[in-house]
Amino acid sequence: MPTLVIANKCYSSWSLRPWLLLRQLGIAFDEVLIPLGQPDTAARIREHSPAGRVPILKDGDVTVWDSLAIMEYAAERWPEAQVWPAERRARALARSVSAEMHSGFQALRSGCPMNLGKRFGARDRGEAVSRDVARIDAMWQDMRVRFGQGGPFLFGAFSAADAMYAPVVTRFDTYSVEVSGVSKAYMEAILGLPAFGEWRAAALAEPWFYKEDEVDEEPLANFRPVR
Amino acid sequence: MPTLVIANKCYSSWSLRPWLLLRQLGIAFDEVLIPLGQPDTAARIREHSPAGRVPILKDGDVTVWDSLAIMEYAAERWPEAQVWPAERRARALARSVSAEMHSGFQALRSGCPMNLGKRFGARDRGEAVSRDVARIDAMWQDMRVRFGQGGPFLFGAFSAADAMYAPVVTRFDTYSVEVSGVSKAYMEAILGLPAFGEWRAAALAEPWFYKEDEVDEEPLANFRPVR
Repeated sequence: MPTLVIANKCYSSWSLRPWLLLRQLGIAFDEVLIPLGQPDTAARIREHSPAGRVPILKDGDVTVWDSLAIMEYAAERWPEAQVWPAERRARALARSVSAEMHSGFQALRSGCPMNLGKRFGARDRGEAVSRDVARIDAMWQDMRVRFGQGGPFLFGAFSAADAMYAPVVTRFDTYSVEVSGVSKAYMEAILGLPAFGEWRAAALAEPWFYKEDEVDEEPLANFRPVR
Repeated sequence: MPTLVIANKCYSSWSLRPWLLLRQLGIAFDEVLIPLGQPDTAARIREHSPAGRVPILKDGDVTVWDSLAIMEYAAERWPEAQVWPAERRARALARSVSAEMHSGFQALRSGCPMNLGKRFGARDRGEAVSRDVARIDAMWQDMRVRFGQGGPFLFGAFSAADAMYAPVVTRFDTYSVEVSGVSKAYMEAILGLPAFGEWRAAALAEPWFYKEDEVDEEPLANFRPVR
């Protein structure tokens, strides 16, 4: 069975992506969770990959790191799981929006770090964040309208593109970001996935808190014991 | 024939990646170059893609944006061109190091912006840049030793992984970055590609200069008329 090496479920957006993809598509794997910020964290990650970053997938004699590379590997390795949309135009677009997420939206990522343990009220988080949100909202609507038949996800059935945007969905939820009705319905579909519920329950049971991932605002709600 | 939309050749590292891949693998395409920083730049790019970023590949009814998505599209569309290494372990690693480049090495990318028009002397550019350089140097050596039989590139024959790292090669060359002998030989192989020579010649004939891509140092050499 393959092994997926990940970091904390409350904060590690990169880890959530391939975990959710494999779990949701029914691909069995063993999980190794290495908590960030511990004295032995870097050494433990480097035991698995020279890049020193999670997530990492180990499958027999193959080691793949980086969320997007893991998804492309999974698409080849388990073709029956339909990692990408089957239709070629939809597949090209799914890869485009996934790569756009992979290298972009820096303002949103640093201004609204993934944090499943709290919820914050809506507020202006700066022009760059608003620009990222507007682009994502428009993209989700566009994909849903053009390709969303046959299911509630970006390309109808659940695919790697949804796994790539799942941490964005949690950010919009955590920071009460205003989006269109179409995007709200899409967010509900992601947040309602049994696999996501499993991830969130585990996240809320975690004991680790990281200052750099906690924005300096009074939360509306605390889903973990306060620290 | 497909069309590749790119930005300036002197500075646009993201544009160089798919351009070099397609050209080097002999895939014919039309080129549309949209210079950055002009009053109509954003509007012209958005005519081709809603993401508003270059590079963009248009192939019949398919539009793909982002360098990595274009490479995966090309791998499916022109299988005879061997975009990725043929052997599955090598292919998984090629995708891992390509994705690592795609989302990482921020310190190197902002500290040493791609600039084919000048050369600068070696100097300390900070700990974060040194860390990026050390990781890349180690990775290149590792790939060359393990997979470099049968050719001078990361996985022997030229592949998408080389196209992803080509702008890193030019940065190391431009900023006189010290690397191992193995990595130096690899850089020579990339800089010696006829396709790269073609790109560089066009870059040096461009009239556009951008302050944000010009570091504040006295250059060792100017390859374009000074500005």
